[in-house]
Amino acid sequence: MSDMGLTVKKSEDFSEWYTQTVLKSGLADYSSVKGCMIFREHSYAIWEKIQEIFNQKIKATGHKNVYFPLFIPESLLKKEAEHFAGFVPEVAWITHGGDTPLEEKLAVRPTSETIMYATYAKWIRSWRDLPIKLNQWCSVVRWETEATKLFLRTREFLWQEGHTAHATKEEADQEVIDILHIYKDIMENYLAIPVLAGKKTDREKFKGALYTTTLEAIMPDGKALQMGTSHQLGQNFSKVFDIKYLDQKEKEQHVWQTSWGFSTRMIGAMVMIHGDDKGLVLPPKIAPIQAVIVPIPYKEANIESITSKAKELQEKLHKAGVTTVLDNREEYTPGWKFNEWELKGIPIRIEIGPRDIKQEQVTLARRDTSQKTTVKQEEAVDAIIKLLDEIQNQMLTKAKKTLKEKTTNVKTYEEFKKTLNTKGGFIRASWCAEADCEEKIKEETGATIRLEPLEKEAVFSNCIYCGKEAKKVVYFARAY
Amino acid sequence: MSDMGLTVKKSEDFSEWYTQTVLKSGLADYSSVKGCMIFREHSYAIWEKIQEIFNQKIKATGHKNVYFPLFIPESLLKKEAEHFAGFVPEVAWITHGGDTPLEEKLAVRPTSETIMYATYAKWIRSWRDLPIKLNQWCSVVRWETEATKLFLRTREFLWQEGHTAHATKEEADQEVIDILHIYKDIMENYLAIPVLAGKKTDREKFKGALYTTTLEAIMPDGKALQMGTSHQLGQNFSKVFDIKYLDQKEKEQHVWQTSWGFSTRMIGAMVMIHGDDKGLVLPPKIAPIQAVIVPIPYKEANIESITSKAKELQEKLHKAGVTTVLDNREEYTPGWKFNEWELKGIPIRIEIGPRDIKQEQVTLARRDTSQKTTVKQEEAVDAIIKLLDEIQNQMLTKAKKTLKEKTTNVKTYEEFKKTLNTKGGFIRASWCAEADCEEKIKEETGATIRLEPLEKEAVFSNCIYCGKEAKKVVYFARAY
Repeated sequence: MSDMGLTVKKSEDFSEWYTQTVLKSGLADYSSVKGCMIFREHSYAIWEKIQEIFNQKIKATGHKNVYFPLFIPESLLKKEAEHFAGFVPEVAWITHGGDTPLEEKLAVRPTSETIMYATYAKWIRSWRDLPIKLNQWCSVVRWETEATKLFLRTREFLWQEGHTAHATKEEADQEVIDILHIYKDIMENYLAIPVLAGKKTDREKFKGALYTTTLEAIMPDGKALQMGTSHQLGQNFSKVFDIKYLDQKEKEQHVWQTSWGFSTRMIGAMVMIHGDDKGLVLPPKIAPIQAVIVPIPYKEANIESITSKAKELQEKLHKAGVTTVLDNREEYTPGWKFNEWELKGIPIRIEIGPRDIKQEQVTLARRDTSQKTTVKQEEAVDAIIKLLDEIQNQMLTKAKKTLKEKTTNVKTYEEFKKTLNTKGGFIRASWCAEADCEEKIKEETGATIRLEPLEKEAVFSNCIYCGKEAKKVVYFARAY
Repeated sequence: MSDMGLTVKKSEDFSEWYTQTVLKSGLADYSSVKGCMIFREHSYAIWEKIQEIFNQKIKATGHKNVYFPLFIPESLLKKEAEHFAGFVPEVAWITHGGDTPLEEKLAVRPTSETIMYATYAKWIRSWRDLPIKLNQWCSVVRWETEATKLFLRTREFLWQEGHTAHATKEEADQEVIDILHIYKDIMENYLAIPVLAGKKTDREKFKGALYTTTLEAIMPDGKALQMGTSHQLGQNFSKVFDIKYLDQKEKEQHVWQTSWGFSTRMIGAMVMIHGDDKGLVLPPKIAPIQAVIVPIPYKEANIESITSKAKELQEKLHKAGVTTVLDNREEYTPGWKFNEWELKGIPIRIEIGPRDIKQEQVTLARRDTSQKTTVKQEEAVDAIIKLLDEIQNQMLTKAKKTLKEKTTNVKTYEEFKKTLNTKGGFIRASWCAEADCEEKIKEETGATIRLEPLEKEAVFSNCIYCGKEAKKVVYFARAY
């Protein structure tokens, strides 16, 4: 295990640093299937935390979890033409069951609008059946042809997808924004990743949606990452799938729908934003292990008294709701253990050595700043809870500062290109709102409009591309 | 919704009763994909409960959750010949990604031994890396050609699969049995389904295993249902996949492995065993909703005082850890609500009407026995907690009695056939332990040996088929 540590610095080779951090921290691994990854115990435990938090929030607002089939018959996937065109190049197709060719080939779900809405049409009859607010946790498959990037681009990934049906456009609009706020809460207050919230342009919206709202974060290499999207589907799907209800006046109406999702790529964003040259740095609220106790048994020390103090503290922390591991493996040295837990990003390391015993104290080491402090044993639990909170807050504050630094206002296309090619990041600019300019900018620079902010911002120049009058301020970036 | 109730009795047409109960209670529905079902909110919430309980138990014993890819390359699935032969007739094959034919076709996982163990070979180097104890929750696909039965036989179902690797045979043996005990605990003490525990014969064991242990329950129609299995894989897979470790003496060894799983078919068993002519009956520990409060607003009543009492009680129950719904929908009558919650199997209905208000009491109705009692408002929470406990226990006691009644000792093949064709159930008989007799019995009667009990039982006749000396007592049944 001498190859355990990272061999590159984050600032020197970001891409290689990312891959090494993900692999060596035990978050993930490559698999025997090209383009598909293994979510190892460390990342799956993080995903379970995210599930727990999100489930609690959506259940409190009347959503229910369900599970729809993995497969979608080709004819069904084709029903909404624009949607199908958006997904078909990336669909994995089942053609045989055992030796027998299927009568109709089946898509492995790239997303579940079509399979779910075919059934919604059967379930919905009256206004009493509305709203329907369902969510599912599952894996989806999109047959990417570009190179794999762990968490960010794999052929199979894990996500949640919510699918709701409402009586009115207003209710659906509200749902879209309510979910976006839940997403933002999770990203900022749990993952400690600040995001911009906004609307996608027509070019960038979900295929089949009326409009798409999005949350976007910026990575240390200056590229944007889409963190979650929430779509107003309007009546596009309900008309195609014939999802109608009788309103309170016995009049037939098509439902208004939303769909929304976030995926395991968030974990990748968390690695990129918070990680350092020693490995992962996990925000305390998301860390599956929040503190690790490492006993330091010097030869002259009374090992039993160290172990018993360590166990006592673990028990107290457990009762206080702090997930704590006591690492008393005998086959590894304390130094080896320090490195391993740092690589895994555990927020606080608690050291208990002979001197700590003598002074009735413990030593706390913060993962995010490497700062060490000592606290009296009887104050340890309170101090640790306070420190976890402080780490969580400081990680967000730091990331917010970076987001600000990586956002640049530009007034000309020259400035735009220069910024893009030097520091990258979000480029805030005024735009005429014509698809033509958007398209040309993308062709010439690779940058796309990530979003138009939810709260309209005042234009501050003419359109950076065509020079005509600008209609709105938007945020450009190159993106993952 | 006048078609809401069941139109057949359980005793008259068990199969139709089962289908109606599953569909009308909102547990599940058919989907647009032949052979695949929809796990609706009610069954998915039950599944989440089961996940929560099982996760807690396996994590406490050092297991971790992970997620491996959905796909398995054909060459990998083929590596262990017996295993492959067992699954290949039922494999769904991916042949295309978008328009492009794949170089090698991919199986949708029917089970994950091969894809996981290819990676275990990479992860395991030294005795320090052992044991590995991983579990995953996922869906699996087996292209059944027989007719679908909701929960019991569908082409896709949800399950957990555990996969462990150990240094010695003894440790792996212990793991197999530890897991079987956790399964038994969940089935009996949560689902209230009594099970027989035993070993499969070589004919019936998992393809690729050294031996298989199983838990079997008996359904009201006399057919057995396999509820969960735990396999000792020996070194079969570790030799094929070259999973080796250096022991403490630096000698190379192959690991010993286990795999184990249970699936959503348990939910089907729960429906069959506990349901009645009004619908589902859920054991309190598994019910996603344990109690429902139905206010009964007669015209003369003070509706506000009823609602405020109801809310107060819901709040108290919530604090006491009882999941309670307050059904104050105005568009439905109390009678309609009674039927709906009975159909859904909620253990306790709490009625609050004008008389209850006057007498400072609430009325409790048990779903399992239909018994009604009244309790003083201030004693309601304690009474409900006690009643939930009582229901849970009585449901198990009743099911145990049925299991006993449905188990018959036979000494001759005539008796065997007669029992099978009249009452069905488990048939306890002595057997010579020859595969030949087992095979002939299966051919002639459709009954298989479900298990040989874990604790050897004394033979009480010669082999019921060949008449030669019997070696062991086994349990036969026709099975789902």
